[in-house]
Amino acid sequence: MASLQEIPDCSVLNLKVTLAYDGGAYVGWQRQAAGISVQQRVEDALRQIGGRPITVNGASRTDRGVHALGMVANFHWPRARPDPATLLRALNALLPADIRVLKISRAAPDFHARFNARWKLYRYRILSTPIGDPFRRTVCWLMHAHLNVRAMRKAARFFVGRHDFSSVAVNPGYERASMVRHIRRCVVRPLEDEILVEVEADGFLYKMVRTIVGTLVETGLGKRAPETIRPLLESCDRRLAGKTAPAHGLFLARVRY
Amino acid sequence: MASLQEIPDCSVLNLKVTLAYDGGAYVGWQRQAAGISVQQRVEDALRQIGGRPITVNGASRTDRGVHALGMVANFHWPRARPDPATLLRALNALLPADIRVLKISRAAPDFHARFNARWKLYRYRILSTPIGDPFRRTVCWLMHAHLNVRAMRKAARFFVGRHDFSSVAVNPGYERASMVRHIRRCVVRPLEDEILVEVEADGFLYKMVRTIVGTLVETGLGKRAPETIRPLLESCDRRLAGKTAPAHGLFLARVRY
Repeated sequence: MASLQEIPDCSVLNLKVTLAYDGGAYVGWQRQAAGISVQQRVEDALRQIGGRPITVNGASRTDRGVHALGMVANFHWPRARPDPATLLRALNALLPADIRVLKISRAAPDFHARFNARWKLYRYRILSTPIGDPFRRTVCWLMHAHLNVRAMRKAARFFVGRHDFSSVAVNPGYERASMVRHIRRCVVRPLEDEILVEVEADGFLYKMVRTIVGTLVETGLGKRAPETIRPLLESCDRRLAGKTAPAHGLFLARVRY
Repeated sequence: MASLQEIPDCSVLNLKVTLAYDGGAYVGWQRQAAGISVQQRVEDALRQIGGRPITVNGASRTDRGVHALGMVANFHWPRARPDPATLLRALNALLPADIRVLKISRAAPDFHARFNARWKLYRYRILSTPIGDPFRRTVCWLMHAHLNVRAMRKAARFFVGRHDFSSVAVNPGYERASMVRHIRRCVVRPLEDEILVEVEADGFLYKMVRTIVGTLVETGLGKRAPETIRPLLESCDRRLAGKTAPAHGLFLARVRY
């Protein structure tokens, strides 16, 4: 049986949905046998409302434990079923409190949240205090030691541009052949007691943001010079990069089309 | 065997400690058979560091699920054991991430965190949005409906003063005879998409803040007039007050001595 996605049909709407979620309880966005995913939760709720199986395309696979402030997804929805405004309320009523649908709007029939995504912005939160904060323990990476923000900023600039990012990614085998991506923005900025790292690119390799953050933190700790980033990228050798930062500090912040 | 608290002794220091905790996983501050308390976690850590049982006096019993930004406690600590600065680091290393010790200082030998407390400030967070926020679901009471802040403010003023607060408290039996307390501050203030309720008093009855908040919310929803607060207090009848607001929006913010 062909899926709804494959047959453009006047009786279905293509809906674009923006979601926020706390990834702490999930194996990631994408459905998998290993546990509950955000995609599964959303598809289950849609099936309950729409009365038939619905496939949701997410803009990005977020990894286990990674959060989202602005995940975008799309799905085809029977026109005869509740309209977008009603659907938004019904979804939020059915979904658990750690997943919220922020917005639903109609999209062009051929809009695809993943294939049409032009830029994805990830934000990483580092809490830089000696003691920590009980209320940010699940959304920030706690760094007791002092970080040199100036050095981190200098290092961050080396990541900007079109590069082969093999040295800051984990290759899980199913990765597409090309490891070249375009980072158009990589900034480090202090915000009260946090240090935020923002990386915007046309695509990301597996664990790429978290490896960049881990490498920037090594710079901030004085363990590596900012100038080592260029040869790191040229080496295409993952062993020369820093440790992968933990998932719970990472947020998919925004997707641009 | 007499406890350390009963024998003033030059070989012990009386330490004043300020803590923050996410109460979500605990039965409350106070030790009880029903489950893990914050007090137990702190006493267990102190015993591990100090090598002997230590009793910690908290300024306030916070209920199951209630949080703290500035709980104050005191305990007697062998002078020969690690000094306050070292103890702070050791405690935070042993305690789980949802309990943090913010400060430890020496107090007068007769200082008692509960008996000497003059004013306690509680803050209640209401998230007033139709959708909610995955990252504040454990620290705010979510209200989908619009709240009339002006009406809530007007109602809040009626709680200020020295009153018998029986009508906004649950009497658990072990309450002291007098239900009279002095509220010196009861304010409602919007902060971005939240509505904060702050209540400062010389003492609180069981579930008093949460009943006040529940009653203020009824006013904000237009279900009761602000002017009904005075007769409510005069009635001493709990059945005339609003529902008890959920624990997870409540924070013990500050204790004054």
